[in-house]
Amino acid sequence: MKREERIVGMVNFFLENPRKLKRLAFFAEQFNSGKTTISEDINIIDNIFKKQEIGYIKRIIGPTGGVMFVPVVSFADSEHFIHNLCDRLSEPKRILPGGYLYMTDILSEPSTVKQLGKLLATVFVDKDIDIVMTVETKGISLAYAVASYLNVPVVIVRRDPKVTEGSSVSINYVSGSTGKIQTMVLSKRSLQAGDRVCVVDDFMKAGGTINGMMNLLSEFDAELAAIGVLAEADELKELRVIDEDYVSLVKLTEMDQRKKMIQVRPGNYLNILNKIVKTSFL
Amino acid sequence: MKREERIVGMVNFFLENPRKLKRLAFFAEQFNSGKTTISEDINIIDNIFKKQEIGYIKRIIGPTGGVMFVPVVSFADSEHFIHNLCDRLSEPKRILPGGYLYMTDILSEPSTVKQLGKLLATVFVDKDIDIVMTVETKGISLAYAVASYLNVPVVIVRRDPKVTEGSSVSINYVSGSTGKIQTMVLSKRSLQAGDRVCVVDDFMKAGGTINGMMNLLSEFDAELAAIGVLAEADELKELRVIDEDYVSLVKLTEMDQRKKMIQVRPGNYLNILNKIVKTSFL
Repeated sequence: MKREERIVGMVNFFLENPRKLKRLAFFAEQFNSGKTTISEDINIIDNIFKKQEIGYIKRIIGPTGGVMFVPVVSFADSEHFIHNLCDRLSEPKRILPGGYLYMTDILSEPSTVKQLGKLLATVFVDKDIDIVMTVETKGISLAYAVASYLNVPVVIVRRDPKVTEGSSVSINYVSGSTGKIQTMVLSKRSLQAGDRVCVVDDFMKAGGTINGMMNLLSEFDAELAAIGVLAEADELKELRVIDEDYVSLVKLTEMDQRKKMIQVRPGNYLNILNKIVKTSFL
Repeated sequence: MKREERIVGMVNFFLENPRKLKRLAFFAEQFNSGKTTISEDINIIDNIFKKQEIGYIKRIIGPTGGVMFVPVVSFADSEHFIHNLCDRLSEPKRILPGGYLYMTDILSEPSTVKQLGKLLATVFVDKDIDIVMTVETKGISLAYAVASYLNVPVVIVRRDPKVTEGSSVSINYVSGSTGKIQTMVLSKRSLQAGDRVCVVDDFMKAGGTINGMMNLLSEFDAELAAIGVLAEADELKELRVIDEDYVSLVKLTEMDQRKKMIQVRPGNYLNILNKIVKTSFL
C-alpha cells in the first residue's frame, strides 16, 4: 500500500475517532505495513495537523500506550467563528417574550454545532472528563458535539421519569431566574460514583439549571469537572446561584423588547483559550 | 505546499463537511495551488476513499457546480456493526417493564451514534432530504448524526410549547401502542412548505409517534422523504398505524419479561442497503 493511501486511511480514522487511543500495531495490521513505517506516517500526519491547526497526535509511551488524535481549534478560527455567531445572534427577530433569545436554528445546524463542540472540547482538553451531562432538550446537540470530540458518553437529565430509562434518581431545585421549583430526573444506570462530569447547556441566566445538575451530581457521588454554555445572560453577580468557573462562548449583554434591540458579545471563551494557548499545547 | 499536505487538508475538509458542495477555486485558494493540481489531488482522494470504502467524491459540472464528499458505509462494515448491535441489545438486563428495551447507553455513545447515522444516511443518499425531524428526547442524538452526514438541519418536535421556541403549531394524535391521546408541538420557524423531511426515531412500536410527526408535516405542507428508526418492535401488521416504507436497523423479535428472554435481530436495513449497492453508487 502506498504512503498516500495509508495517510488518507489514518487521517480518516483519526478524524472519525478523536481521542481514541490505538496501538501502532492496530494501524500496522490494518494497512499491512511495519510499525516503523506507520510511525513515520504518523509523524507526517502530526506535522501537517499542527501546521494546518487541525489538532495534533498525542503519543503515549508504555505497554498500554499508543497514539490518539486531539482535535483543537486555533485562536484565529475561534475568534472568527465567535464574532460571526455574535452577529447572527444580535438579529432583533430573535427577541422572545421574557428576555429569551431564539437560538434553535443555530443549534439545529450540524456544522455549527460541531464547531461549537470542538471549541468547548479544545479548552476542556486537560479536564480529565469521563462524561458530558446536559438537561433536555435544547442543549442536547451541543452536549453530543462536545462529547464526540472528547470521546466520552453523554447523559441526558430528564424533566420527568420515563419508563424507557429504568429506575431513576430525582431532585427538586429552584430556578434562579423564575424562583419556581422544578424537577430533574436521571436514570440510575447513567452515572457511576467518582465520574468526572462536564456540564453543558445552551443558555445560562442565573445558573439555576446548572446548579440543579450539580445537586444531581452529588446524589451520584460524581464530580464536577467543567461547565460549558453556548450563551450566558449578563446577570447581576448577586443573582447568580453558582460560584463555579464556567466557559461561555457568547454573552447576551443587552436586550430591550420594546426597542427591539439586542446585543450579543463574545463570552469568556476567547480569554480562556488564550491562556491555554500560552501555557500549553498549541 | 506539498501534495501530502494538500491531501491531508482536503481530507480534513471533506470529512468535517460531508455533502457540502465547494468549487475547486475554494481549495485552490486555500492551498495556494492551481485548479488542475487540485483536481488531480481530488482524483487521488476519490480513488483512495472508494478503495477503502470511506465514501466518494461527487463532481457536479456547470457554473454552480463543484465537488462534495458523500460518506458511505460498506455492506461488510454495516453487517458487522448491526450484528454486534443485536448482540448488545439482546442482553436480558435491558428488559424494562411494559415491553420496552433499555437503549439509552447505546444512544449516549457518540461513536456508536455517528456510525448509526452514517448507516441511515447511506441508504437515504438519493432521497433529496432538506431536513431531519425527530421528537424529543431519545432520538435526538441519532437525528443529529443522520443530519450531519446529510448536511441538513434538524428540527425537534416538543411535547409542550416552550417560550424559547417562539410561536408554534400543535397537534394531537393517538399513540398506537397505548391508545392514549398525546400532543406534539413544533416551532413555526422550523419548517417551510415543500421541505422534504426525513423522520428519525429511536424506537417504533405501532408507529403512532411517527404517524403524529407525519400529521405535523401536513400542517406545514411539508413532504415525507424517508423514515429511519434504530429499532422496530415486531408488531402484528394489523396494529401498525403507518403504511409508509421505513428503514429499521434492528428488530426486537421477542421479549419475555418473566423468562428474562429477549431477541434482537437485524431490521430491514441490510436488505435495503443491498439493493442500493446493486443498483447504484457503491
